[in-house]
Amino acid sequence: MVSHRAGIGTPRTQVGIVGAGPAGLFLAEMLRRHGIGSVILEARSREYVEHRVRAGVLEQGTVDAMAELGVDERLRSEGLLHEGFELRFDGEGHRIDMQALCGRAITVYGQQEVVKDLTDAHLAGGGTILFEAGDVALHDFEGDAPSITFTHDGAAHTLACDFIAGCDGFHGVSRPSVPDGVLTVYERVYPFAWLGILAHAEPSSEELIYANHERGFALQSMRSPSVTRLYLQVTPDEQLDDWSDTRIWEELQRRMETRDGSFRLNEGEIFDRGITPMRSFVVEPMQHGRLFLAGDAAHIVPPTGAKGLNVAVSDVQNLSEALVAFYETGERTALDGYSARCLRRIWRVEHFSWFMTSMLHRPHDQDPFEMQLQRSQLRYVTSSHAARESLAENYAGLPRE
Amino acid sequence: MVSHRAGIGTPRTQVGIVGAGPAGLFLAEMLRRHGIGSVILEARSREYVEHRVRAGVLEQGTVDAMAELGVDERLRSEGLLHEGFELRFDGEGHRIDMQALCGRAITVYGQQEVVKDLTDAHLAGGGTILFEAGDVALHDFEGDAPSITFTHDGAAHTLACDFIAGCDGFHGVSRPSVPDGVLTVYERVYPFAWLGILAHAEPSSEELIYANHERGFALQSMRSPSVTRLYLQVTPDEQLDDWSDTRIWEELQRRMETRDGSFRLNEGEIFDRGITPMRSFVVEPMQHGRLFLAGDAAHIVPPTGAKGLNVAVSDVQNLSEALVAFYETGERTALDGYSARCLRRIWRVEHFSWFMTSMLHRPHDQDPFEMQLQRSQLRYVTSSHAARESLAENYAGLPRE
Repeated sequence: MVSHRAGIGTPRTQVGIVGAGPAGLFLAEMLRRHGIGSVILEARSREYVEHRVRAGVLEQGTVDAMAELGVDERLRSEGLLHEGFELRFDGEGHRIDMQALCGRAITVYGQQEVVKDLTDAHLAGGGTILFEAGDVALHDFEGDAPSITFTHDGAAHTLACDFIAGCDGFHGVSRPSVPDGVLTVYERVYPFAWLGILAHAEPSSEELIYANHERGFALQSMRSPSVTRLYLQVTPDEQLDDWSDTRIWEELQRRMETRDGSFRLNEGEIFDRGITPMRSFVVEPMQHGRLFLAGDAAHIVPPTGAKGLNVAVSDVQNLSEALVAFYETGERTALDGYSARCLRRIWRVEHFSWFMTSMLHRPHDQDPFEMQLQRSQLRYVTSSHAARESLAENYAGLPRE
Repeated sequence: MVSHRAGIGTPRTQVGIVGAGPAGLFLAEMLRRHGIGSVILEARSREYVEHRVRAGVLEQGTVDAMAELGVDERLRSEGLLHEGFELRFDGEGHRIDMQALCGRAITVYGQQEVVKDLTDAHLAGGGTILFEAGDVALHDFEGDAPSITFTHDGAAHTLACDFIAGCDGFHGVSRPSVPDGVLTVYERVYPFAWLGILAHAEPSSEELIYANHERGFALQSMRSPSVTRLYLQVTPDEQLDDWSDTRIWEELQRRMETRDGSFRLNEGEIFDRGITPMRSFVVEPMQHGRLFLAGDAAHIVPPTGAKGLNVAVSDVQNLSEALVAFYETGERTALDGYSARCLRRIWRVEHFSWFMTSMLHRPHDQDPFEMQLQRSQLRYVTSSHAARESLAENYAGLPRE
């Protein structure tokens, strides 16, 4: 809640949070349950944020985090529990039974639904989210009295706080606010992108299908029993205008076909489409003074492993635990160790996302030796129990350390 | 045995084998046990072949193959059974307990000892090996009456045979004898090599140690309780003359050091040294007409996975089974399927060898993102039970299909 220091007129909170995406909302709500105040500043409108189409695969740990906050009512009724997924290559499907292999499953539930549930709960509980906050700038986080300046409803404001959480994504202001020379950047840009569509069509398979095909990767996913989410590997400079509905469906059908000809994707009206670049990105450390970065502000994974949202949640679990420890005991150890704790999981997720991406995509200039390694890896991963279990535990999400 | 067709003067055998390395010797001896005749033509002297220092890690399947042929007496008394090995990185060791993880182990026993045992057994059983055979050339294997011409003891000879087995290694004449356009080549040359030494020193660890260090990969292996085998990652153009004994030991000590300072390599007189390039190489198919390639003649792996000798043995197991089926029943199905059967295992081994090589070496121009992936992979492979099991089953050798 925004309070005012007596006589000064500067609103003050304990944790200033930049960004009302999943990371910022989870953090604010976790803190609120421990009586720690926050203000979320979000550049976009509530309408925009709640309809932004993003990830849709929740690890068990993310579902558990929703349950702990008591915001999982709609998730439990509308989320689709998936105990397995399929790898398809050489025209044959191979199911990875996550539940049997590692005792965990994933839940398909759109990121924007998570955002809606958390926004509703946070506001209902008295939390503060200032949408359409403009000109956000972070100040003095190298010292003990950081603040955030911003404009809202046509007026300029300064928010004083103890800590700033930068949860404003890859393109946000938080990461660039860190002085030059502090952050080490690790990056990989892949030579392909995903053309994604949403279509009014019943999913053709109850579970996700990751297909490696000589024409490129394709993925069948879903949003609901009547909405299919489909992706095609394309080149990074691909133009949406070059892809008619007919061309999209023909290409999807080709890449998803099975050798026995038995599989056919259900088609329907395409009501959303876009092209997503593929990138791996990490900065170290994820903190500087009293500024803490979380989620996409600090790291990006290619979407193949379905990890972006999930690792953002584990970041803010770490951050909220560290802040709770600080406010309850004055102990700074967990805060000081925030980045190191997060990065161990982040690099696991970066490696897994790179692994899935490398195993499933066909680079335009793929060297024949690599193509054979890829096929051998796919055969091994679907035939060895140990390899299937390793794939399953990573996909379903490893336990927090 | 070399026999002569009545009145023609051309020696004749069922299978002409080029090369008296492990592939050729295993094949000849397997065939002999089924009453199938062969002649081995070897370019080098017996003395040379029996002292050529090569691999030394035998999978359980290779040990079993020796036992089936009854040539494992010395192996059982002198071979060193290893139930585990160590991965060392960030100055800490992590044991991979193969026996516990996958129920199989490896045996350290030099390739030249395998060669000695097989040579002795084959000659004692009446087999024919012609050492120092010169000018070997393969003929007419696209038709039904192949032959091999060669010189021996100063005279020119022609060996008529039903089939030719090309077991003469990467630099042998068999593979280049296949007409242009038949073979597809898959190749990867790595940007590093191994500087290997043999030293009169007690191994410092009872098991192999694979060390990933910022200065490059190092490996501690052994030949016997008093002979250590050690390797250092170097650049491919490295000159042996630049490496004094002192420099070799200093570099090995540095790369093998543990964070607690407790580990020290035993040093001793270096009595053998050499530089091995690192290459992955496969040709498909491994057969053409009545010529069958086996072992290094058809494929090379970098030595990191210790697979070269072992996959050569599985090749000739497939070939001997196919030849036995042909001679016993006239059935050609197994012969026709030889290449496809071998290649499935070969690509698994190629992938595993690439995986081990990539995980353990530090390329000179390693990109920082890749370095972090490598560390994460090492942490994961040593901490997840499923990943350890996957590593163990590949290293100890997957069962034949």
